[in-house]
Amino acid sequence: MIHPSAIVSPHARLGANVSVGPFTIIHDNVEIGDHSVIDGYCEIGYPTPLADGLPLVIGAGARIRSHSVFYAGSRFGDKLVTGHRVVVREKTVAGVAFQIGTMNDIQGDCEIGDYVRCQSNVFIGKMSKVGNFVWLLPYVVLTNDPHPPSNVLVGATIGDYAAIAAMSVILPGVKVGERALVAAHSKVHRDVEPHTVVAGNPARYLCDASKIRLKDGSDQSAYPWTRHFHRGYPADVVAGWNTP
Amino acid sequence: MIHPSAIVSPHARLGANVSVGPFTIIHDNVEIGDHSVIDGYCEIGYPTPLADGLPLVIGAGARIRSHSVFYAGSRFGDKLVTGHRVVVREKTVAGVAFQIGTMNDIQGDCEIGDYVRCQSNVFIGKMSKVGNFVWLLPYVVLTNDPHPPSNVLVGATIGDYAAIAAMSVILPGVKVGERALVAAHSKVHRDVEPHTVVAGNPARYLCDASKIRLKDGSDQSAYPWTRHFHRGYPADVVAGWNTP
Amino acid sequence: MIHPSAIVSPHARLGANVSVGPFTIIHDNVEIGDHSVIDGYCEIGYPTPLADGLPLVIGAGARIRSHSVFYAGSRFGDKLVTGHRVVVREKTVAGVAFQIGTMNDIQGDCEIGDYVRCQSNVFIGKMSKVGNFVWLLPYVVLTNDPHPPSNVLVGATIGDYAAIAAMSVILPGVKVGERALVAAHSKVHRDVEPHTVVAGNPARYLCDASKIRLKDGSDQSAYPWTRHFHRGYPADVVAGWNTP
Repeated sequence: MIHPSAIVSPHARLGANVSVGPFTIIHDNVEIGDHSVIDGYCEIGYPTPLADGLPLVIGAGARIRSHSVFYAGSRFGDKLVTGHRVVVREKTVAGVAFQIGTMNDIQGDCEIGDYVRCQSNVFIGKMSKVGNFVWLLPYVVLTNDPHPPSNVLVGATIGDYAAIAAMSVILPGVKVGERALVAAHSKVHRDVEPHTVVAGNPARYLCDASKIRLKDGSDQSAYPWTRHFHRGYPADVVAGWNTP
Repeated sequence: MIHPSAIVSPHARLGANVSVGPFTIIHDNVEIGDHSVIDGYCEIGYPTPLADGLPLVIGAGARIRSHSVFYAGSRFGDKLVTGHRVVVREKTVAGVAFQIGTMNDIQGDCEIGDYVRCQSNVFIGKMSKVGNFVWLLPYVVLTNDPHPPSNVLVGATIGDYAAIAAMSVILPGVKVGERALVAAHSKVHRDVEPHTVVAGNPARYLCDASKIRLKDGSDQSAYPWTRHFHRGYPADVVAGWNTP
Repeated sequence: MIHPSAIVSPHARLGANVSVGPFTIIHDNVEIGDHSVIDGYCEIGYPTPLADGLPLVIGAGARIRSHSVFYAGSRFGDKLVTGHRVVVREKTVAGVAFQIGTMNDIQGDCEIGDYVRCQSNVFIGKMSKVGNFVWLLPYVVLTNDPHPPSNVLVGATIGDYAAIAAMSVILPGVKVGERALVAAHSKVHRDVEPHTVVAGNPARYLCDASKIRLKDGSDQSAYPWTRHFHRGYPADVVAGWNTP
């Protein structure tokens, strides 16, 4: 279960049936839930004074893929899943079933809801707030400094069920409303109303999200996406969705 | 040839004169061609049920740089070259002399031609089709979901000899014609005609590619690039180019 | 100090009190200054014929985080700090206190001044010139090929104290003047005057940098940033700033 080449601190608290891959390092101040699987080349509980002595807590049933780095001081609900070589820094708190894509870079002091799914190469800057059931697609960047460099850090806020498409940047302090869609390659400098679509550089209102048709031959609306897309969500969670 | 710290499955089929670096893991269902060199910290043949039991097949003369991950179920022609920390997932098929840049993330179910060159941080989404002699520059993203999240995946198609410049996003289902040029930081939402240049967000027709002059003091046209750029291509391949 | 799993060449020249983490490889042609700390999974002094036999020289007091790769032939002043999994290639020369963010990819033949700070996922193409006290924010890309692919490589030049915000691309040969600000998600195809702000795709002049107000409740100007932001710079360096 623990590969002989892994370096696991005797102070780390590993649950039942936790698997640790080759060449992985687990530091002292770490708590990992039952039945979690950690691949090779990971560094879990990377020490930093910014963690203020807080442990890294990973819930049960986690799956952490190779070459990933988690700092001390963050906390994740059950069923965390990651791609390869993610970094998550200190004092970030995430809910259940967080999916972190390959090469995501999640800074410290973020609040992340339940069932958030990030695809590859997402960057979540310090102080960001991400709601529940949010989708961040490849190369999305949430920024936080309105006039770099400065000591004024204001994170972005992403509402429940919102989706932000590839290579979009959300500027500091911007609120993306719930169930909104940000089209690919947008620069979002103003708040986005709930249920709307914005696009462009700078991003402008395009239409109500419900106007977008599913490109599957049906005449259905593509939004709210909770009507047609359930893959990977537990049945009881889907049953609880209050899809408008 | 095999570093003593490497973990190589006895079931992996390694050709003659294959070199495996320190701390690298080679899984069971892997076939690597003669004279290949694999650096340290790589994980080759990462198991996934999505591979349907297919092996990872890497042709002869491959050079795979450090911290890279290849899933089971993909297949590469001879002379594969990678930068550091690439990921390639299952059921992608690529031709000869594929060059994968540092931190590329190549999803599953892609078709990639011969002599394709990707620079750093390229993302190729599932179901993409990339022709022969294509160039993808840093931070190019090929997307596939027209209204995320959904189950409708339509990959982009990139024609032979096309070049896509840095930080451009190709939207789902878009076809970039052969020998076309997409300027840097473009969002391409419509098909691009062969031999043309598009630029902007959204990308618009700029000119015929032949109008672009080489910035080398000559009065030559920069396109088709096959007229002036041959670096790294074998002489018989260049001789076979049907440059218009 | 040297972890027993590390592989350190007997020819590498390590200063006093250098720490080398688990599973790290240090090659032959490497010189590392006193009191430097190198994390795990790094490959330091990666050999390449392009280094022309030059060593990798890292000054005193360096801190190199996990999974990083430094090629032979580059040279860094004292107090280098990196995030995780950076790559720096051959023949790049950087001044003191260079901060390289997580997943930066710094190509060869670059000139980098003193106290440059790069955040995550910055890409610095071959032949770039970066001044002193420059800030490059997440996903900034400095390009070099005006008509890819070609053999004409002209790097960008970034002036002292300039700041380039997230996801901006600087096109080949462009000069960003000193103390200029490039707004997020810009495509910069023309030179940027000193002390000005540009934004957009393509980037256009927006205002004089001094017109931007600090969003901290004060009525101060945010630029020159050297007036209000000193974090991490030594007092004698700040005292030497000739802030206009």
